[in-house]
Amino acid sequence: MTTALHAGTMQPYALTLDQFIDHAAKWHGAAEVVTGGIGGVTARVGYAGLRDRAKRLSGAFRALGLAAGDNLGVMAWNSQAHMECWYGAVGIGIVCHTLNPRLAPAHLATMIARAGNRVLAVSPDLVALAEQLVPLCPSLAHIIVLDEPGVASVLPACGGVTGWRYEELLDRHGAELPWGGFDENAPAGLCFTSGTTGMPKGVSYTHRSNYLHTLHQLQTDASGLSGRDTLLVAVPMFHANGWGFPFSGPACGAKLVFPSRYQDGASLARLINDERVTMAVGVPTVWLGLVDHLDATGGEVPSLERVMLGGSAVPQALMDRFEQRLGAIVQTSWGMTELSPLGTTTPANVPVRSATKSGRPPLGVDLLLTDAEGVALPEQRGPEGRLKVRGASVVERYFGEDAPAVDAAGWFDTGDLAVIDRDGNVSITGRAKDLIKSGGEWINPGEIEAIIGALPGIAQVAVIGRAHPKWGERPILVIEPGKGAAIADEALLEALRGQVASWWLPDAIVRLAAMPLALTGKIDKARLRAEHGAAA
Amino acid sequence: MTTALHAGTMQPYALTLDQFIDHAAKWHGAAEVVTGGIGGVTARVGYAGLRDRAKRLSGAFRALGLAAGDNLGVMAWNSQAHMECWYGAVGIGIVCHTLNPRLAPAHLATMIARAGNRVLAVSPDLVALAEQLVPLCPSLAHIIVLDEPGVASVLPACGGVTGWRYEELLDRHGAELPWGGFDENAPAGLCFTSGTTGMPKGVSYTHRSNYLHTLHQLQTDASGLSGRDTLLVAVPMFHANGWGFPFSGPACGAKLVFPSRYQDGASLARLINDERVTMAVGVPTVWLGLVDHLDATGGEVPSLERVMLGGSAVPQALMDRFEQRLGAIVQTSWGMTELSPLGTTTPANVPVRSATKSGRPPLGVDLLLTDAEGVALPEQRGPEGRLKVRGASVVERYFGEDAPAVDAAGWFDTGDLAVIDRDGNVSITGRAKDLIKSGGEWINPGEIEAIIGALPGIAQVAVIGRAHPKWGERPILVIEPGKGAAIADEALLEALRGQVASWWLPDAIVRLAAMPLALTGKIDKARLRAEHGAAA
Repeated sequence: MTTALHAGTMQPYALTLDQFIDHAAKWHGAAEVVTGGIGGVTARVGYAGLRDRAKRLSGAFRALGLAAGDNLGVMAWNSQAHMECWYGAVGIGIVCHTLNPRLAPAHLATMIARAGNRVLAVSPDLVALAEQLVPLCPSLAHIIVLDEPGVASVLPACGGVTGWRYEELLDRHGAELPWGGFDENAPAGLCFTSGTTGMPKGVSYTHRSNYLHTLHQLQTDASGLSGRDTLLVAVPMFHANGWGFPFSGPACGAKLVFPSRYQDGASLARLINDERVTMAVGVPTVWLGLVDHLDATGGEVPSLERVMLGGSAVPQALMDRFEQRLGAIVQTSWGMTELSPLGTTTPANVPVRSATKSGRPPLGVDLLLTDAEGVALPEQRGPEGRLKVRGASVVERYFGEDAPAVDAAGWFDTGDLAVIDRDGNVSITGRAKDLIKSGGEWINPGEIEAIIGALPGIAQVAVIGRAHPKWGERPILVIEPGKGAAIADEALLEALRGQVASWWLPDAIVRLAAMPLALTGKIDKARLRAEHGAAA
Repeated sequence: MTTALHAGTMQPYALTLDQFIDHAAKWHGAAEVVTGGIGGVTARVGYAGLRDRAKRLSGAFRALGLAAGDNLGVMAWNSQAHMECWYGAVGIGIVCHTLNPRLAPAHLATMIARAGNRVLAVSPDLVALAEQLVPLCPSLAHIIVLDEPGVASVLPACGGVTGWRYEELLDRHGAELPWGGFDENAPAGLCFTSGTTGMPKGVSYTHRSNYLHTLHQLQTDASGLSGRDTLLVAVPMFHANGWGFPFSGPACGAKLVFPSRYQDGASLARLINDERVTMAVGVPTVWLGLVDHLDATGGEVPSLERVMLGGSAVPQALMDRFEQRLGAIVQTSWGMTELSPLGTTTPANVPVRSATKSGRPPLGVDLLLTDAEGVALPEQRGPEGRLKVRGASVVERYFGEDAPAVDAAGWFDTGDLAVIDRDGNVSITGRAKDLIKSGGEWINPGEIEAIIGALPGIAQVAVIGRAHPKWGERPILVIEPGKGAAIADEALLEALRGQVASWWLPDAIVRLAAMPLALTGKIDKARLRAEHGAAA
């Protein structure tokens, strides 16, 4: 029994992302990628055509001096051109650094500096923002304007950078380049998390991690995405790989529909109906806008079979309206940038019908509940714990940092609190850092928020800790009432009694006309704590 | 822009097969693995229980002297114990060498010698065969009898080996061992192809290749297997990893039903109904037996939603009977041992309803049609070509051989002829080595066989070349008429006229009471050529 006899004999086949578009072009060449605009669809291409254009874009990137390992900056809404940038870059080993245009220029400049971006591609309406960035970003040499029909645009007028119109760049320098041929552990993407405090942290995805994430996501019990689907990608591509769908779409031959910047209910409803969308993905607020619009207009979206929600807690009322008003199944999910982002999903074929449950992890994502010291809970079903994750599409350390972001056993601490029910459904119950310590005992704001948030007349809710001379901290309830709604303090407290321990009842109730939101759209608890957290 | 900045930062997470059972035990611990027997189900265990037993089995294998890299021989019908052997072995890096008990003892002995098996696990009714093998296999030291309730068994009586009863071995030596911790490129499985001529060739699967094959297979458009499915695995586990389903079952939490050796229609119908099977996989002949049984008894299998057929050409009549008689969707597929085995499938949600079409490849399997010299056909849609394959679950070279089994560009030649339609559906049209050269031009027996095979009254059909002094070879039609059926020569020729070129019409028609079959159940064309291929 020599060693040679026992070596595996399978092909060394690198898991690189260029294969997704190759696969789509070959087996689903006519399946389309569609981009919405103000007057309806503004761009439409089959995967075979998109592959040809992306390969020419690789040549154009090379002509601008980008080589394997370099970072391309992309600050753009979801569109065909944005997707071509991704594949044109990763096909020749360039790393795609996605930037969220809603962040503050100073934050964006820090990210661009840390990534060393020489080339930045932007949507036409973001040229002014790019012009603001240029003086802050000495590394920038080229700005590519991803023109869209119907959207006015100019080239950047500031000095120090060369401006390019996308199609002209393709025409002038679009010499097709061969793709692939590099290691699957090469970096493919860079995305900074938008923490509300402190420096943003970058996650450097690899070809391997994104390839495997795609296979995780394509499992029937995960997204269940299929070549017969038309998918509306209403999650921005600068949010954690657009949840991975610009990869899994071509990987299975699904038609993709990009809404560009038009995410209002009317625009989405028209796109869904015009393109016969079967599945849609995005954050709850986007879908709230759609349902409100349909309620107001009496419209219908009969082709829509299911919606995958993620990114923040799902109101049960939204889930119910979706299923009852639209007849569409809701797939809840949980993920984060550090997970590429898929953590858990509920399958379309066995919906959970509970908005607080985020489903189970697919093969390839491993979860563990621990106590505050990182020790695994002896009972993983029932009790609340800190949620840790392991897997090939989970971060090991942040971009540019030497220290690992995982513990000795390889677990990444999500910072989330969670419980797992008997069936393995995960519910996120809060953030570890939001916990309130009162008299030496922990209060989880998430549990209180879930109860209050389910009441009629509540638009937004947050519970924060307020400093207290005796107890250390005491919980404060902050609400934004719904339009025209009024709800008495006593009614709020009554809703909590019996549901939580009596010492969890908030010491004060604050009403705000508008909840302060962080740039990500999530409630800005840091600001709430600053403004309302001092001892009364 | 230093190199350090651009290294990916994702977790190094080895793709090893032990994770499938870990995942199943953790997230689908109560989902069952069920084994059928003569009087009904004889064994039943949840994935959590199966994992515990398999980990103890790892300890028992270690006690018998097996270590990482060694090959465990398993010659067994599909059962819980067989599956425990797989995971007990691969969990600690032992390679699982599956053996087909229907092969000739001399062939089996060669395989055992080449694998260097010291330990052989066998089903209880295969002890006699094992006893035949012992004197032929000097490497064998231990025989484990995988006892099944209701099946009489004895320990091997021959000298030279130690016999073990499975449960006693577990009781005596079943000390749980930790799993994993090795490289994903470590070998995990060994399967010899059962070529009808020449030496069998071995394929040495790796953890990585089988892990990725599982993810290929779990795509919605491939098997579409889901945690809500109950899957009847009627393809033997010694045939190309049981088509990979003993891996993808636990990987998604599907309940698995193993029929053991009882693959007759009555046994399968009972298992399907008793266990509420939703999906079944196996070769066409097995399902022909089921449909015949249900026709004869008037039985129904209402829980059965779909059947995946593969392994040989699917008769259209069988497909139609399945869909009409049973209301079950037929998923056609094509694969081979060298592909782990998945090549193409038709998705359950868009059935093709054509038995000759085998569907499209999933992401991860790449196909190419070439001419006889290996040059890619300029047009990949329409014309017939030789089918080549690339991918992470495709063989690079055969076990123990230094020469690659792939060409310079990494393509493995399947030996099959195929056409691909406009939609990307692959149809296997024949075997390259079965082609007949008449007057310098090629005749494809597969096309003639497809036409004749679709006629009523034809049970089996084969077309072979007969030596001819003028033309080199001429086609000869060999048929096995259906029970009680008679069909005139002229009717056979008439069916071909207009469908194939006139010079493709067979020179002679031979009727056999029983078509000679190779050990795999496929028609033995080598024997037909030997007996009927000499010049008339």
